[in-house]
Parts: sequence; C-alpha cells; structure tokens
Amino acid sequence: MWSIIVLIFFSTISYLVTDELIPKMKNLFINAGLYGIDLCKISKDKIPEAIGVVSGCVFLVTIFLFIPIVFGNGLMDRGNFPHNEFAELLAALLSICCMLLLGFADDVLNLKWRYKLLLPTIASLPLLVVYYVNFNSTTFIVPIPLRQFFGVSINIGILYYIYMGMLAVFCTNAINILAGINGLEVGQSAVIALSIIIFDIIELRGDQFKAHSFSLHIMIPYLATTLALLKHNWYPSKVFVGDTFCYVSGMTFAVVAILSHFSKTVLLFFLPQIINFLYSVPQLFHIIPCPRHRLPKYSSETNLLYPSKTVIIKKELTALNKFVLEVLTRFRLVDKQEDDDCIIINNMTLINLFLIKLGPMPEVQLTTSLLLFQILCTCLAFLIRYPMASYFYDVKL
Amino acid sequence: MWSIIVLIFFSTISYLVTDELIPKMKNLFINAGLYGIDLCKISKDKIPEAIGVVSGCVFLVTIFLFIPIVFGNGLMDRGNFPHNEFAELLAALLSICCMLLLGFADDVLNLKWRYKLLLPTIASLPLLVVYYVNFNSTTFIVPIPLRQFFGVSINIGILYYIYMGMLAVFCTNAINILAGINGLEVGQSAVIALSIIIFDIIELRGDQFKAHSFSLHIMIPYLATTLALLKHNWYPSKVFVGDTFCYVSGMTFAVVAILSHFSKTVLLFFLPQIINFLYSVPQLFHIIPCPRHRLPKYSSETNLLYPSKTVIIKKELTALNKFVLEVLTRFRLVDKQEDDDCIIINNMTLINLFLIKLGPMPEVQLTTSLLLFQILCTCLAFLIRYPMASYFYDVKL
Repeated sequence: MWSIIVLIFFSTISYLVTDELIPKMKNLFINAGLYGIDLCKISKDKIPEAIGVVSGCVFLVTIFLFIPIVFGNGLMDRGNFPHNEFAELLAALLSICCMLLLGFADDVLNLKWRYKLLLPTIASLPLLVVYYVNFNSTTFIVPIPLRQFFGVSINIGILYYIYMGMLAVFCTNAINILAGINGLEVGQSAVIALSIIIFDIIELRGDQFKAHSFSLHIMIPYLATTLALLKHNWYPSKVFVGDTFCYVSGMTFAVVAILSHFSKTVLLFFLPQIINFLYSVPQLFHIIPCPRHRLPKYSSETNLLYPSKTVIIKKELTALNKFVLEVLTRFRLVDKQEDDDCIIINNMTLINLFLIKLGPMPEVQLTTSLLLFQILCTCLAFLIRYPMASYFYDVKL
Repeated sequence: MWSIIVLIFFSTISYLVTDELIPKMKNLFINAGLYGIDLCKISKDKIPEAIGVVSGCVFLVTIFLFIPIVFGNGLMDRGNFPHNEFAELLAALLSICCMLLLGFADDVLNLKWRYKLLLPTIASLPLLVVYYVNFNSTTFIVPIPLRQFFGVSINIGILYYIYMGMLAVFCTNAINILAGINGLEVGQSAVIALSIIIFDIIELRGDQFKAHSFSLHIMIPYLATTLALLKHNWYPSKVFVGDTFCYVSGMTFAVVAILSHFSKTVLLFFLPQIINFLYSVPQLFHIIPCPRHRLPKYSSETNLLYPSKTVIIKKELTALNKFVLEVLTRFRLVDKQEDDDCIIINNMTLINLFLIKLGPMPEVQLTTSLLLFQILCTCLAFLIRYPMASYFYDVKL
C-alpha cells in the first residue's frame, strides 16, 4: 500500500517534469521539421508534432526509477525475489518502449500501414510469453444464459493468444483514428486511464489484489504524464501529440488489460473507440472512398466546425456500396446529398457524427462533448460490470 | 546447442531482411529531412542519415521472435520455467530498445549532452536490478602480485554498480566519438562483436556455459544485422548510420558485458576506443579548443584525407593548456605549428593520429587501417586474456 503513496509522489514529480520539458523542447521539434499547421485555426503558426515522445519518455523513466521501490522487499530478501512479477513488469515496459519507438519513427518517417499492423503484433510477443508462463489461463467463463449450450467455461487455447495479440493492435490504432481535434486523443486517454484506476481501486480489496496493484503501478504515472501533456494539447493546442502518443497509450492499456486479466472491462472503457472503429470500417476498408484526412471542416467566418464530406461517383457504385449506403441511410447514420452524378456523404467518424446530430459547433465544445460521451460510456461500463454482471455471471457482491 | 544453429538460421534471414530494407527505406529518411552530405566526397548527394534504426529494429525483432525458441524447453515445462534468465533477456532487450529510441531521437532532434549522459544511465537501471537479483557478485579478484596488499578478492559493493552504470555510458559514447569516415563505426562494431563471439565459443566448454550462451544469443543476430548495414555503409557510403547505431551497439556490448560477467574482457576489445577517448579528453573537456566537427579534411584535388586542425590563441593559454601541450609534444602525439599569435595542432582523434603517423591517405585506406588496428587489439586482448592472465590470476588452462 505504501508503495502506491510513493508512486503518487513520483507521479506528481513526473507531471511537473513533463509540464516543464514540453515548452522547453518545442523548438527542437520545430527545427527538426516535426511540426504541423492546425487546420481548424485561422493562425498558420507552426505547431510542434510528436510531443507524445516527451511524455512517453518521462512515463517510462518514472517506472524505471520506481523499480527498486516496488521490488524493495524482494531486493532485501533475494531468495524470495518475485522473478515472475519482475519479468511481467519488464515485458510491459519493453512492449511500451517498442511502441514509443515505432510511434516516433512513424511520426518522423510516415511508415506504411503494414508496419503499423505488424510491429505492434511483434512488440506484444514478450507480453504473450510472460502471460503464457505466468498464467496461461485461456478459459472464458460462459455467461449464465448460454451455459446450457457451452458449459460453465470454454478453453479457447491458442485463440486466446491471437485475441490478446489483436487487442494490442486494436488498442494502438483505435485511439489513433478517433483523433484530429485539439485535446481529443489525450483527453480520451486520460478518461480511460482514470476509469481503469477507479476500477483498480474498487477491486483492490478483492482476491485479484496483485493484478490490480500491478495495473495501478503502470496507470498512475501514465495518467500523470498524460495530464501534463493535455495541459499543452488542450484547445488552443500549443503542441500536437502525434502517433507516438496514441501508440504508447494504446499499448499501455493493452499491457494492463492482458497482464491484469481484465481485457473485457478495458474493452468496455473503449466503447466510443469501438463505435468509431465500426462506423469507420466502410471507409477504412475502402468500400466508401476515404480521403487522406477525415477531420471536420473549419470555417473561419463562423469559427465553427462542420462535418467533412466524401464524394462517391454514382457510375462506380457496386452492389456492396449500395447496400452499405442503404443501411447507413436507413439508420440515419450519414448525412447524404445527391445530384445526377455523385453522392456526397459525411466522412464516417464519430466526430463528424456528433456534428451531424448536434449541429456545427466550436472546436472546444466538440472535444468537450466527445469527452463527456467517453465519461458516459465509462459509467455505462461500470453499470455493465457491476449491477448487470450478476445476471450473467455468479458474482460475489 | 541446437538453439544456436536455429539462431544462425534466423540471423541469416535477418541479414537478408536488413539488406533488403535499407535501400527500400532510403527515400523515407531523405523525405523526412534525415540526410547529410558526405564531407569527404566531391559529390554533394543527399545521403540518408540514422539508418542504424533499421538494422536496430530488425535486430530486436529477431530476438523477439527467437524468445519462444530459446525458452522452448521452459515453455513445455512451466513449473521449471527459468524466470530469472527470462527476466535477464527482457532487461537486456529493454535497455537496447531504450537506446534505439534515444539514438533515433538524438538523430532527429539533436539532443543536448546532458540527455546523452543521463538517459543511458537510466536505461541501464533494469539491467542493474537484474544483476543485483540474479548475481550480485560485486567482488573483484585481485591480481596475484597485488594480493599481499589487498588479499585474494575485494568486495567493492555499490561501487561495482556505479562501474556498470558508467560502462553503459562509456560504451554508448565511445563508438560515437571514433567515427566520421565511411564504414568506421559499423566496421569497428562488427570487429568487436566478432571478437566477443569468438571469446564466447572458446568459453562455451567452461563452467560459465550459460553466460556465454546468453551472450551468443544476443551477439549473433547483432553481428548479422550489422554486417548488412556495413555493406551499405562501406566506402563509398550509400547510407549513414547515425547516433542510433552507435548507441544501440554500445548498449548491446554493455548488456553482454554486464550480464555475462566479462566486462574486463569486453573492455580489452574496446582498446582503440579507450585510446581514442583518452586522446580526446583534452578537447572533450575543452582544455584544448574543440571545433564542432573533428573529422579529417578532404582535398578534392588529391582525393586524400589530411588531419584537421584546431587553433589555440597564445594570449589565452593557461598553465593547464601549456602543460597538456607540453606533454603531448614531448610524446610526439600532436602535429604542432606555431606563429607569433597562435598555435595550430591537429584535432585529437585516433583518426587524425593515424593520418599524422602514416601520412595522408584515401578514405577507404584510412578506414581499413583503423579496422586492422582494431583487429590487432583483439589479438592483443586474447593474448592478455589467455597466456598472460596466468601470471596474474590462478587460471585453469
């Protein structure tokens, strides 16, 4: 318990260090050509890009320095040193460090998609080996209503490892595609991190004490550095966080989900990201044309954001196109305009969907709305996880 | 034993992959502004910089993929899984991955010196914790002639950890400062790696079998990816390797030296780097003025390299300056010219020293001479390590 208090102290320092470092390092990034122009602003100032690497490094260093403290007891009594727990933490750090490297390389070099999918899979390999060695529990508990068909639990074996590998790829990319307006990537990550921390604190009394304490050791410094980053990335952004931040965040959540065995709960906290992903699927798989940027359109006259559009040429419509469009229109999920030659619909992101349903709004209001939705989803997740779970599982309450 | 054969197979593939990837990724680096002009050539072509990140990533991925194989037996029989050895490998990979990130960040952002010294120290922390837990042998065996004063062995305790931390900082920077001409950084690293591999093979029969097999698991894929890099970096260089490569190499050697307990032998293989470092000290600590670049001067007329010079203004000479200059001149280690106002001496690097002693020469000949010197030092190291060691230590031969 006292190690958590020390950790909060360490994390406070890492918040202050990150907050101090970011403005200091801004010019280094701009001089290196790592900058972008904010497309939703009148000003054409150079905004440094990939600043997530600063918060990511401070996050890693904090955990490094914390190693001797968290394993303090083990270090005093080396005969009983918990090698397996230490290997767990090292594997977690290794996976996160790999994603930090990959994300930064991606920001600098603009890597191809295949590397973005391949490398997180490989980066999660040490994690899976640790999981195999320390737990190797590949059993799903079957919800009560389905037990008549499948029994109490199913062992899905190797499929569970594929699921975990895919979780790492999903988490790293899911945050990356719900992005584009000031403060959204960092804001959503902060909400998810806070949700996991609350969940850990609730469960600290339970029999999974160790797993949740492990999760806290990772999430608290993560949240601290992320909040420092948010301060500078909030509207109007003075820095952009880059793929670096999204990758590190995604991998951090995946690591915690896998090694603390609550991947289903983490996925519940990812509800807005899952909705955004599913809604994006037609464009991601190029069933609907996908422009390079899908972020909302800014009008300097009104200072509001409007949904951005994509154009489908009618002649090129296939049966699949038509079906997808029909479904989307039926459920009123797109804003469709038609003329003789082409159909114009909004780019299918959760951000644009908010603009369609709630009307054009200023950027800061849009970010706030999306973050409120994220918080709402966390509340829903806790509702599903606690009161409702008792209908599906034998839960000790 | 068979795992070494599989590893050689894996490493051959990683050689081919690196060799294939480097030319493919060249334009990504140039487009990102990561390029330099070769100062020792007439052509002013853009040469991609920091390509060491490619070989470094392939190196890491190779070891990642190799984990399930090297721990194959442990994975079958999870009750006896060697958690401590696994933690060792993870800590090694974590330290190397951190240096890959730091090196790449340095190439992109041009970090300040304090980060270059601070971060390797922090990156070696997991390594030191693993060392503490798994070995914690902080005892130096005293050479026989000195035993009458100190006894058979001295336990230097915490000093040993400081020594190991400094080893990581030294190795990462030592290669970085013996650099500047085509193929030298990569060539010297390949020679050191090969030396360590030969040493491991000799010692594989001994009682330190495990430590040397661990070292081989790291060094063989390292050598494979380094040789692929050397092919493209050899005169005339089509790619530059950047700080990335030097940092990764240095940390890889430090990791192996620390975790396989033969840091003294590794330091013997670093003889040219140590000489270069000691020779550079007056300039590194600004006792003698140090220009930004100290690499040799290229003359396009003769196509030869000449030692580069630094200027000392006589009025500004302090007693310390005079003393250092006197010593260097006495031992004929500098080429000194004088007029009324200033003294002109060569920049103090091993590269310039070679040019002074052997005369101006073409770049490729200079690299070859320096690499031959590195090989000679390896032979000397083996001479010290084997026949001569019996005069100083009780060695079983």
